[in-house]
Amino acid sequence: MMLPVNDARTFKSSIPLELDCGKNIPRFKLSYETFGELDAEASNAILIFHALSGNSHVTRKSQNIDAGRGEAGWWEFMVGPGRPIDTGQYFIICANVLGSCYGSTGPSSLNPRTGKRYCLDFPIITIHDMVRCQARLLDSLDIDTPLAVIGGSMGGMQAIDWALSYPWRTRGIIPISTTPQSSPQSIAFNEVGRRAILADPRWRNGHYYDDGAPPDDGLAIARMIGHITYLSDQSMRQKFGRRVQNGNSLFQHLCSEFEVESYLSYKGSSFTKRFDANSYLYLTKAIDYFDVNSDSRYWNKTKMRQTFLERMKALVISFTSDWLFPSYQSKQLVHVFKNLHVPVSYCEIESSYGHDAFLLETEHQGQLLNDFLRNLKDDH
Amino acid sequence: MMLPVNDARTFKSSIPLELDCGKNIPRFKLSYETFGELDAEASNAILIFHALSGNSHVTRKSQNIDAGRGEAGWWEFMVGPGRPIDTGQYFIICANVLGSCYGSTGPSSLNPRTGKRYCLDFPIITIHDMVRCQARLLDSLDIDTPLAVIGGSMGGMQAIDWALSYPWRTRGIIPISTTPQSSPQSIAFNEVGRRAILADPRWRNGHYYDDGAPPDDGLAIARMIGHITYLSDQSMRQKFGRRVQNGNSLFQHLCSEFEVESYLSYKGSSFTKRFDANSYLYLTKAIDYFDVNSDSRYWNKTKMRQTFLERMKALVISFTSDWLFPSYQSKQLVHVFKNLHVPVSYCEIESSYGHDAFLLETEHQGQLLNDFLRNLKDDH
Repeated sequence: MMLPVNDARTFKSSIPLELDCGKNIPRFKLSYETFGELDAEASNAILIFHALSGNSHVTRKSQNIDAGRGEAGWWEFMVGPGRPIDTGQYFIICANVLGSCYGSTGPSSLNPRTGKRYCLDFPIITIHDMVRCQARLLDSLDIDTPLAVIGGSMGGMQAIDWALSYPWRTRGIIPISTTPQSSPQSIAFNEVGRRAILADPRWRNGHYYDDGAPPDDGLAIARMIGHITYLSDQSMRQKFGRRVQNGNSLFQHLCSEFEVESYLSYKGSSFTKRFDANSYLYLTKAIDYFDVNSDSRYWNKTKMRQTFLERMKALVISFTSDWLFPSYQSKQLVHVFKNLHVPVSYCEIESSYGHDAFLLETEHQGQLLNDFLRNLKDDH
Repeated sequence: MMLPVNDARTFKSSIPLELDCGKNIPRFKLSYETFGELDAEASNAILIFHALSGNSHVTRKSQNIDAGRGEAGWWEFMVGPGRPIDTGQYFIICANVLGSCYGSTGPSSLNPRTGKRYCLDFPIITIHDMVRCQARLLDSLDIDTPLAVIGGSMGGMQAIDWALSYPWRTRGIIPISTTPQSSPQSIAFNEVGRRAILADPRWRNGHYYDDGAPPDDGLAIARMIGHITYLSDQSMRQKFGRRVQNGNSLFQHLCSEFEVESYLSYKGSSFTKRFDANSYLYLTKAIDYFDVNSDSRYWNKTKMRQTFLERMKALVISFTSDWLFPSYQSKQLVHVFKNLHVPVSYCEIESSYGHDAFLLETEHQGQLLNDFLRNLKDDH
């Protein structure tokens, strides 16, 4: 169930990690990749955070692109030589988050205290716990202050947490398609997905790793629900309409007659080949817990914090058809930054792609990021 | 699994019913209730169609209301003496649909050809198949032409089908919170719910009736998904916010910490006590199939049909926060009526209740219905 990505390196920390839940883990590892070259002042680093089902493979290694080698990354069009986040200018770091299953420590890892896999003994984690680990990774790379932290969706929550927890540790923040606070509707969708996993008899209280029969039915259903929330009513009408699979006639089966049904079914089942059900439980909980307003860490108004917050720059981006983390939530995030006196720009981009737009909309989004990063760099 | 409602009567038809799928069933029964008195000309009948999980019990019997006897109906505030659909003036008929589990023939019924329960041998049904049965019920009551046909959600689809299939058999139609065509997004939500039922090992290909262990986990998950689509982002924020169950602290469990989670969980599990999983499969499919544009029955332009369509009156109602069948879909329905030269009025009512608004919004909706019905009656 551990799926380290090719070319990824592993950062290992053996200092115990204290977590928001009050528990700790004695050590952890993060799988990560870097792209481009760090300059002599370590001033051109950009930390990119991935979303729920992502990993460290944000793009291909630059040297392989022309040769077509290596699997495309999850933000391939955005990160690379000459692309909006230009690996010719910046040193990009992307790490698989704590709790995930792409080479970082999570519920499928061995618990050093027992010699067995954690399964549900893995402690509950938060977005801030993920970010704590990445701060240690940057320490190990001798990078005090990245030029910017960037992320979409759950990655955007990490970017927010990084900037508000360690305001001296970034000069720019770009949260995209995200929210300062998970809404009850998004919690509800995550909860139904978790219920589907727990109801799968093969889940067996999280102990399924060593018998070769993971709770694929439950995880597939969870992913199907998630996938609907990543698209939009409009994009589904454009993409599928009411077309019937293979031109068959209707009124034949209780399942999968329409193309949209078989598409979702395919997305659900292919997800089970690349993701761990327990990781899905832990990461969706971390998303649900995220609430900028209720976390006193963010609102601690020391003079030093305030100085750094006022020096920071934020660019908030949302997409018109995103109904999972709708634009009104990005506007709430803008207000959070304003209350903290962080200079902030906001752009709502017209798109029919729904929540997935941050992974698909190239032009306008790319231009915004490119301009923002160039200004940050020039200001320095 | 058959749950006939108190006071309901049963209409039995032993003429074989030909279905849209090409199969037939040799006989069927419908459980139905009536309220008020039919006048001498049989001109004051109103046929009300229920939604997916509804039944014939649209309201209490009028004589019992003051005594508080009898269970409240699903449209109690709308139907009754002196209420918007006034049982003092109109004769109301509401029947449980074909395929459901409240006393009408469905997958849990005995197949007279085998002497065993239908289970998945029950043929695939459509909205029009449901309506065909209700037309026979009205024949049996000697009602040729009800004053109006009314329904919300799946009930609205039946109202549309009734009016366009039998334009000589109603003078008014009120489709509420509905659509002329299930969208790929609503099909997708239904499909994930069906998948959850099919993935439940207790579903056992639909043969679970006689062992006392129905697929409750799957049906509960299906209902939880459905329930999210019946509410709205706004109503969930108003109703639950991010409140934690019993004031507990967070970071404790992988499930049900927030109130919205335990609410959904309760709604899911209570649904399993009153609904049949196979009925859920069949009725959601019927909803998905519904498409006014693709059904040639509706567009057959004989002179007689056209005469009756032009004499009919339609009132289309939608609610601002309904995102399952959003207002743009009601506007498409208005265009359908216009294309068929049916005089149509449309009202979009401001509400935060989402799709459920038709079951909750009293005042404005009630006034609209009351006025429309009075005008219909006066015109006669």
